[in-house]
Amino acid sequence: MLLHPGSSRQPHLADDSAVLQALLDVEAAWVRVQARLGLVDEQIVAMVGRHADAAGYDLAELDLGVEAGANPVIPMLAALRSALSGQTQAAGAVHRGLTSQDVLDSALMLLARRSLEVVDDRLEAAAEATARLADTHRATLLTARTLSQPALPTTFGAKAAGWLAALDEARAELLGVAARLPVQCGGAAGTLAAIDELAPGRALEAADLLADQLGLASPGRPWHTDRTPVTHLGDALARAGDVLGKIAGDIVLMSRPEIGELSEPALEGRGGSSTLPQKRNPVLSILVRSAAIEAPHLAAALHCAAALASDERPDGGWHAEWRPLAALLASVPVAAAQLAEVLAGLEVHRDSMLRNVETAGPALLAERLLRAVPTLPGGADLTEKLRSALRTGATGEEVRSVLRAGLPTDGPHSVPDTTIEDLLNPAAYLGVVGDLVDRALEHHATT
Amino acid sequence: MLLHPGSSRQPHLADDSAVLQALLDVEAAWVRVQARLGLVDEQIVAMVGRHADAAGYDLAELDLGVEAGANPVIPMLAALRSALSGQTQAAGAVHRGLTSQDVLDSALMLLARRSLEVVDDRLEAAAEATARLADTHRATLLTARTLSQPALPTTFGAKAAGWLAALDEARAELLGVAARLPVQCGGAAGTLAAIDELAPGRALEAADLLADQLGLASPGRPWHTDRTPVTHLGDALARAGDVLGKIAGDIVLMSRPEIGELSEPALEGRGGSSTLPQKRNPVLSILVRSAAIEAPHLAAALHCAAALASDERPDGGWHAEWRPLAALLASVPVAAAQLAEVLAGLEVHRDSMLRNVETAGPALLAERLLRAVPTLPGGADLTEKLRSALRTGATGEEVRSVLRAGLPTDGPHSVPDTTIEDLLNPAAYLGVVGDLVDRALEHHATT
Amino acid sequence: MLLHPGSSRQPHLADDSAVLQALLDVEAAWVRVQARLGLVDEQIVAMVGRHADAAGYDLAELDLGVEAGANPVIPMLAALRSALSGQTQAAGAVHRGLTSQDVLDSALMLLARRSLEVVDDRLEAAAEATARLADTHRATLLTARTLSQPALPTTFGAKAAGWLAALDEARAELLGVAARLPVQCGGAAGTLAAIDELAPGRALEAADLLADQLGLASPGRPWHTDRTPVTHLGDALARAGDVLGKIAGDIVLMSRPEIGELSEPALEGRGGSSTLPQKRNPVLSILVRSAAIEAPHLAAALHCAAALASDERPDGGWHAEWRPLAALLASVPVAAAQLAEVLAGLEVHRDSMLRNVETAGPALLAERLLRAVPTLPGGADLTEKLRSALRTGATGEEVRSVLRAGLPTDGPHSVPDTTIEDLLNPAAYLGVVGDLVDRALEHHATT
Amino acid sequence: MLLHPGSSRQPHLADDSAVLQALLDVEAAWVRVQARLGLVDEQIVAMVGRHADAAGYDLAELDLGVEAGANPVIPMLAALRSALSGQTQAAGAVHRGLTSQDVLDSALMLLARRSLEVVDDRLEAAAEATARLADTHRATLLTARTLSQPALPTTFGAKAAGWLAALDEARAELLGVAARLPVQCGGAAGTLAAIDELAPGRALEAADLLADQLGLASPGRPWHTDRTPVTHLGDALARAGDVLGKIAGDIVLMSRPEIGELSEPALEGRGGSSTLPQKRNPVLSILVRSAAIEAPHLAAALHCAAALASDERPDGGWHAEWRPLAALLASVPVAAAQLAEVLAGLEVHRDSMLRNVETAGPALLAERLLRAVPTLPGGADLTEKLRSALRTGATGEEVRSVLRAGLPTDGPHSVPDTTIEDLLNPAAYLGVVGDLVDRALEHHATT
Repeated sequence: MLLHPGSSRQPHLADDSAVLQALLDVEAAWVRVQARLGLVDEQIVAMVGRHADAAGYDLAELDLGVEAGANPVIPMLAALRSALSGQTQAAGAVHRGLTSQDVLDSALMLLARRSLEVVDDRLEAAAEATARLADTHRATLLTARTLSQPALPTTFGAKAAGWLAALDEARAELLGVAARLPVQCGGAAGTLAAIDELAPGRALEAADLLADQLGLASPGRPWHTDRTPVTHLGDALARAGDVLGKIAGDIVLMSRPEIGELSEPALEGRGGSSTLPQKRNPVLSILVRSAAIEAPHLAAALHCAAALASDERPDGGWHAEWRPLAALLASVPVAAAQLAEVLAGLEVHRDSMLRNVETAGPALLAERLLRAVPTLPGGADLTEKLRSALRTGATGEEVRSVLRAGLPTDGPHSVPDTTIEDLLNPAAYLGVVGDLVDRALEHHATT
Repeated sequence: MLLHPGSSRQPHLADDSAVLQALLDVEAAWVRVQARLGLVDEQIVAMVGRHADAAGYDLAELDLGVEAGANPVIPMLAALRSALSGQTQAAGAVHRGLTSQDVLDSALMLLARRSLEVVDDRLEAAAEATARLADTHRATLLTARTLSQPALPTTFGAKAAGWLAALDEARAELLGVAARLPVQCGGAAGTLAAIDELAPGRALEAADLLADQLGLASPGRPWHTDRTPVTHLGDALARAGDVLGKIAGDIVLMSRPEIGELSEPALEGRGGSSTLPQKRNPVLSILVRSAAIEAPHLAAALHCAAALASDERPDGGWHAEWRPLAALLASVPVAAAQLAEVLAGLEVHRDSMLRNVETAGPALLAERLLRAVPTLPGGADLTEKLRSALRTGATGEEVRSVLRAGLPTDGPHSVPDTTIEDLLNPAAYLGVVGDLVDRALEHHATT
Repeated sequence: MLLHPGSSRQPHLADDSAVLQALLDVEAAWVRVQARLGLVDEQIVAMVGRHADAAGYDLAELDLGVEAGANPVIPMLAALRSALSGQTQAAGAVHRGLTSQDVLDSALMLLARRSLEVVDDRLEAAAEATARLADTHRATLLTARTLSQPALPTTFGAKAAGWLAALDEARAELLGVAARLPVQCGGAAGTLAAIDELAPGRALEAADLLADQLGLASPGRPWHTDRTPVTHLGDALARAGDVLGKIAGDIVLMSRPEIGELSEPALEGRGGSSTLPQKRNPVLSILVRSAAIEAPHLAAALHCAAALASDERPDGGWHAEWRPLAALLASVPVAAAQLAEVLAGLEVHRDSMLRNVETAGPALLAERLLRAVPTLPGGADLTEKLRSALRTGATGEEVRSVLRAGLPTDGPHSVPDTTIEDLLNPAAYLGVVGDLVDRALEHHATT
Repeated sequence: MLLHPGSSRQPHLADDSAVLQALLDVEAAWVRVQARLGLVDEQIVAMVGRHADAAGYDLAELDLGVEAGANPVIPMLAALRSALSGQTQAAGAVHRGLTSQDVLDSALMLLARRSLEVVDDRLEAAAEATARLADTHRATLLTARTLSQPALPTTFGAKAAGWLAALDEARAELLGVAARLPVQCGGAAGTLAAIDELAPGRALEAADLLADQLGLASPGRPWHTDRTPVTHLGDALARAGDVLGKIAGDIVLMSRPEIGELSEPALEGRGGSSTLPQKRNPVLSILVRSAAIEAPHLAAALHCAAALASDERPDGGWHAEWRPLAALLASVPVAAAQLAEVLAGLEVHRDSMLRNVETAGPALLAERLLRAVPTLPGGADLTEKLRSALRTGATGEEVRSVLRAGLPTDGPHSVPDTTIEDLLNPAAYLGVVGDLVDRALEHHATT
């Protein structure tokens, strides 16, 4: 898709062909369920199976029939039955007892599963790369910035550990959602009445069998108008988008040449401009951000649809889910792939990170200095001078002079130079960043 | 699109082919601008023009190149220049002085114009049909419902007049937006520097000429990071969606058989169920509702993107606009077409409307009765009895008895039966519905 | 709040007073943590505790100080320290090592916990009431409606069972979220550097102790810029809103007098109109719907904020969370209370339900008739006649005649009247509704 | 409000007291309308007027009555009538012929008008300050950044001119919306039936008179279920938020010390941290960004509500508007005030701007160099060398050497040093920034 940069990385996860295939997969599986229940024999299964390949159908023609029934199941069924013409028993078995929503909801869950598999692979790759960054750079000094301003020293490893923990959490949630993607099987109005007549006393078993056949979870009840599975899916994808977007935003920012701490991996021809040859735009991160900006709105559309799921099948709310869900299923995997690639090849400019720490100067240690100096002999009297120096952006040299001039150099309470140097050393004020890196890596190792 | 029922009604307004064509249209127009400025001759214009047909390009191949530059202009340009290989001057003239965003923003405005034209045609048809309904049914009694409950009598004509006024207002806004869709022409960073070197002193004129060539408005400045035109467009489309959705919601509701006041036009095969032959679902209205539920979220994504339009070209905010905008450009025209068809063939069941008014009974006239009766001779003493009767759902006959029993039948202050009948006649308590219908029709006639 | 009907049901869960109290609770708890770590003695704890009551502060004055630091912690701290003036050690211990975000994030989690407790109580009440409805009405015939049109028979018990399952699932999710609401404790830039100096080697333990003191979960790391806990909370509240909204929407619809199947519980003065005495509007359900329409947007704002959580503390994204989160924390509990009240007193009009089933007629059994009749002796020849009768809304009597006329009454293949009566009996085509009710009740019993 | 930093700048525009006052204003105005129509005398007007001050009512008590009627009009009316007890004629005149929605919708439009006035004042101040910046800095060199990377030279004046144009456009739109804020006057079901009985033939005139009295526009029809005025208002406020957010985002970015081009105006105590004395956070800009992130979601909620405006008064959609609208009415004025203050005192660091231009080096002129050099004598042969130098970040000195070594210094085709210096001078490649500044200032002068 020209307006979805990077979508060519993969077969489109929710295009017409994928949708049709998923619909056919559900119908074919339902015939197999009927065989398990002894309602049709394996020949019927085979006959239907032979016509369950989306490639055998004319998408454009099917498309013309979608509006009349307000969903794609009806023309798909007509085409499938037409393909089975002459094979009355097979044509009759197809879709028997189901309703359009059973087939479309289940098909969307199949598409979701595939999308989540792809997202998972890519989040795993992203997390692996991030874990390497966290480990490699556990001691690489970096300016921690809050409200956009330098605040304290940290390490790039600690920052990466924060990314890693968020990526692993997003992945865990998506795996949970994937494992619970439910089959839909309720018949025309959620009572399984027709299925119950086909297989008396075994209707709910039939629903479970369909879940089995499709590799979906069995929710034990229809969810025609309880759209929790859809919003769970959308929310988890949006949350993955949030995490990807946060990391990408940090990378874009740190790739600004004035900061210069990171660069996206170089690739011939990537990040170029249509007119400026020198440009090396962090395009993948930028695209990831754009997906993250869009995703919350798509997830919100799913919630609105869910809140409007009236009656036993919604009068608009159901239909409103399809495009936002398809958009999320298509965009998050691409964003995950893009960020995984960025993270795998991320160029980390330690020197710039250090330079920025040095430029920020002792102000970066203000919290420490203002707490520690007053506790030193003679230090209490220095507080105002020190505070003033820090406020006005004094250099390390200047602060050192202030301290050295005010703290005793000899006598029983002398403060040695090493104490002052330690106080002015950003690497000596890193709190528990090492532990945070270890925790993130340990937790990641268990995922 | 299988998940967009009705999208086959028209050429897709924002698919890859349409996007590519619009991009080529902008590039070709820019070469024509250069000819107007005397920078190239007409031969160059013709050469470029011969390669400005999207059909001549391989979309799938172009698609592969979109990610590297984070937009489709770069691969489009490469392909166009490759098609012009050997024609150095023409290849050199193409895109000269522009930037990707100039081309893509302008192209999206071209797509928007086409989409708005279609929406306008269909809203006009919808409004025409609604005007006929308002006129025809100006006296057709209908229950006015507030907070879901019968409240007062009104007429279906008055209801349709309300729809009409909203449709006409939405249409007027969209026409305004369409007339202001701006060309984008700012060069690499919004300074028109390269254009100014090409045509010294004429850069802003060149931008105006490009607007002329494309039939877009000339904003007189670049809007690379002032995304007001995009949010105006999105908001107006969402507002059209709101109006369509409100009307469709009313129709779905009034088509419920328990209410039975309206039916969507019948069409063989439409509104059918995959399993229930008797079903005649108001599918078009339902689809319109679904578009209306989705649209606000897409428009909100455009606002978020606008709020994040950093620097001289946004680092993600710009890219986040494309898919939501394309989705709106595709969905609102379809919804407008669907509702226009519904309105044009809407079946109005006067008898059911009347039956519902009668069933609602004198409670529908409570406001009037409780105001008027106490002003009649002897009426003040009836208030409590009357209020109690109305609260408990008394029939017209019962209320008539209460009134007749309590109001004098003879003497100087007698209250004639005709007064009582008038008070109990819903058609006599319609306020200014006639004026409202006239106003809506008159205003519509001027559109 | 005048624009939040029903908010007077409870102390406001996120008003200024509640926010201030939560902030003070966090500061006081942090001093207790310091006592556990041996850094201060219990006297200090007591001193701070004496000033940890929001009632002791002037909210309006505090409010004036919020903007300068862009959050309420800074003026709260100033006021608290001022209250502790003269008690240097206590004033010094307050907030020591923390950052504003630690305090505000933790405080919001405290408010969330309180809100979730209230929501849980009310969802439990709603679920209890719904379970009673499901049980009582397991056999109460009801029209199942799909795409707004009558489709099949079901029971009101089955419908209530669907509501119940969704309520129980929403409740379970919220309980999970409540149990994981995390303390925030990272110090000025998420490294716990100052805390590590206060209590060397025990900084992460200190964070865990703070969680303990506040009854929050201990995430083992700061989440200043990983806003997953906030979006999880928002999503779960929005999902609860979806479920409440779906049920409320069904109730509003079924309370329309033309349908007349349900009424909100009557309460003197409730549901009245400012002008129409007879009105009994389903106001509580309407208010619940309005909360459900609003909630997805608030949750989406939280996702957008999360995606923009830059650096080590976001430059706007964090601040953008507060009002949407407070709005959700205030509105969902009210909606839950309103729906719980509706469900507890819901008037179920069995007679209307049955009347509507009867009015829908044999069309409600079309799925069954068209499957079963052709399998009867002589039935195949009746299919077209039957289909036509159903399509045109034939009554039961008419369909009975068609069947009786076409099916043999004697001979070896005679079809007895009882078979025909069974086919025309909606109560005989209810599928597994009994099982669905049982499953929902059983699952509910375990919650 | 503690969670709305800066809200103490002004009387809260949509708090309970403001809402109540607006409701009373509408009721009082309606009595004046009745006097104009000759239905009551001036004494009645005066009596009602004496009780039309919100300060005379107990908000907490009123609040308890809001839920029963699902809106605040009903308890407000009860309180007003109670205040008028004994004055039967006055009590009877109050609200006569109106419905709750008439009063609340009109009241919200009054609140909107006040909010828009405040926004307008502040946007005007913001625009004035920005105009000064544009004028003062029309020649102040600045790095234009696209996709986060330095692209071309521009001036800070040109950037400010872009901000100015957007501010002026937002202001113009808001003024337009303010001028069209409509009165609501339709009676119980939009037919003006009761008003028509009160003043036969003059009902629509009465509506116009009410508009007059309140200083609102007269739409000529009720808009109970055509919520276009509300979404227009919300969209315009969100758009103002977008513009404010874009500018604030630029300021936050340019205030990062690594870029160091701007600072928020200093104010003792502002921008401080709870722990870091040296911090000078751009807090106002950050708060503006947070409002901009939130606003689109609130506006979207209004669209969703509009799309669900069913029947003659919506069954939830109406009620869903109140809180999002109130939130927008409260937050945008504060954000506008904050940004106006920032812009009025913005510190512009010309030296840093220049330093960044110089650091970016000749790459900033790549577009020009690569176009111009090949047209110089001997230049064509330099293209590859030049491109390579630019790609690898060559300094001005290095590029100068490349050019000087490759271009003839004597002979008929000699290229003088001045030509080379001009090519390397960022101030000589500014396109039409001067014109853009002039245009923005001229347009601003007309607003």
